[in-house]
Amino acid sequence: MKAVTHEKGNIIRYEQGQITNKTDLVVAEHPVTIKINGEEFATLVCTPEYIEDMAVGYLASEGVISGIDEIQDLWVQEDEGFVHATVSRWSPLHRQLYSKRYVTSCCGASRQGFVFFNDAKTAKRLHDVPVELSFDDVFRLVKEMQANAEIFSQTGGVHNAALCDRSGIILERMDIGRHNALDKIYGYCLKHSIPMNDKIIVFSGRISSEILLKVAKIGCGVILSKSAPTELALELAENLGITTVGFVRGSSCNVYTHPQRILECREQPDKHTEIGN
Amino acid sequence: MKAVTHEKGNIIRYEQGQITNKTDLVVAEHPVTIKINGEEFATLVCTPEYIEDMAVGYLASEGVISGIDEIQDLWVQEDEGFVHATVSRWSPLHRQLYSKRYVTSCCGASRQGFVFFNDAKTAKRLHDVPVELSFDDVFRLVKEMQANAEIFSQTGGVHNAALCDRSGIILERMDIGRHNALDKIYGYCLKHSIPMNDKIIVFSGRISSEILLKVAKIGCGVILSKSAPTELALELAENLGITTVGFVRGSSCNVYTHPQRILECREQPDKHTEIGN
Repeated sequence: MKAVTHEKGNIIRYEQGQITNKTDLVVAEHPVTIKINGEEFATLVCTPEYIEDMAVGYLASEGVISGIDEIQDLWVQEDEGFVHATVSRWSPLHRQLYSKRYVTSCCGASRQGFVFFNDAKTAKRLHDVPVELSFDDVFRLVKEMQANAEIFSQTGGVHNAALCDRSGIILERMDIGRHNALDKIYGYCLKHSIPMNDKIIVFSGRISSEILLKVAKIGCGVILSKSAPTELALELAENLGITTVGFVRGSSCNVYTHPQRILECREQPDKHTEIGN
Repeated sequence: MKAVTHEKGNIIRYEQGQITNKTDLVVAEHPVTIKINGEEFATLVCTPEYIEDMAVGYLASEGVISGIDEIQDLWVQEDEGFVHATVSRWSPLHRQLYSKRYVTSCCGASRQGFVFFNDAKTAKRLHDVPVELSFDDVFRLVKEMQANAEIFSQTGGVHNAALCDRSGIILERMDIGRHNALDKIYGYCLKHSIPMNDKIIVFSGRISSEILLKVAKIGCGVILSKSAPTELALELAENLGITTVGFVRGSSCNVYTHPQRILECREQPDKHTEIGN
């Protein structure tokens, strides 16, 4: 496996008016090109670990496969940065629709918030998934992920994602690419037939539409983050039935969508008071 | 112009054991599809301001145009999220090479660090650009950008980029997409014939290969950030002649590549001492 960090020598450090030379750890960034049935499909620039899981997760989230059994062969050429996938259902139409804008009869983005064709096809509706948690779980899970995120504190350069249930973190992945970390989780779960609809995702960065969609494709009904969500992400979360909890810091947080999965939000429907921004 | 933030009502805030309902500002995220000579080329999900500048910067950085005079017509259909560009030199080959992996005879990423064909074509070599600055300038420019970055502190959800010279910030743009903020700067400068080779870029996030390449395409010889660079970004910076300064925090920072543009690094070549990581 390629190293995920490298020592970089001859860095000039300036601190309190003093110049020194030092060696620093920097995070690796490698291109991985996914070829499907011999044809170049996409190049992901990523942290070089769990490449096979990432490729499987990517193929599923782009709708190239609808299940792990549709992958007939997958060969990772690690040093050269290629993944050669042979899939059972592959059509040139797929290549054509990939990254095409999804435009419905109403203006602009579709009414459901989808931007790309493939997203509308592969994002799951999660209104009925059987997952619930308390605010204490929210704070504990986010804290647990942050404590584990060693590479981040060493190099300041990666995103972390964790798959959890109420009892704790099941799987944690990091990557310099926001969506790659989630694809690595998705691929692992597909390969090991881990059910997702009772799980929770914790993510280290902003909840953009892209991240929210990955969570919907994976099939998790809850996402927690210390950062903010975007408006489009919230529109998608509302429509797809995902509970979005942002700004999780210490023992405070904001619940933006589908609060019914958080126990305390169910119990106190009458005690809410409206306060300004 | 569309709003860049929106009020989102009915958020549940949990703090010190108390649940309240509140209204929050969330950042907008809009899809903009760029059509070139009638053909769909790319969809950027962005913060909806300075769309025309972003489109011009994007076309230049992808190598679709090599100068502003090659744009014959550009029409922004703002509400629907489309940009219709008519350019003088457009070939189907372009479409084909777009986002194709750049693989040379040596294994893996190319020796120069380029991942994509278009990057190798459009990134400038900047060894001889006439820009120099002091560590005091580094700290002042980063501080100035952070002070200006209001939307970020309001919503926690955007990246900021600023074009500077030693005397201060000339132009500042924000976007939920890392590269969009830089494309907005690039497009503005192309439209107004602002020379770039004596300027400095300040960026709010991690210096990935993608960000470093944008800076090289814009033609600035210095990038400053409070965050870390990646290994691939440093390889590119070394080869393209860009001074990379990371971890700019308070009055300390790391100079990773081409320190010769920083005055104090020139003056004290013999006083450096090697210390461990």
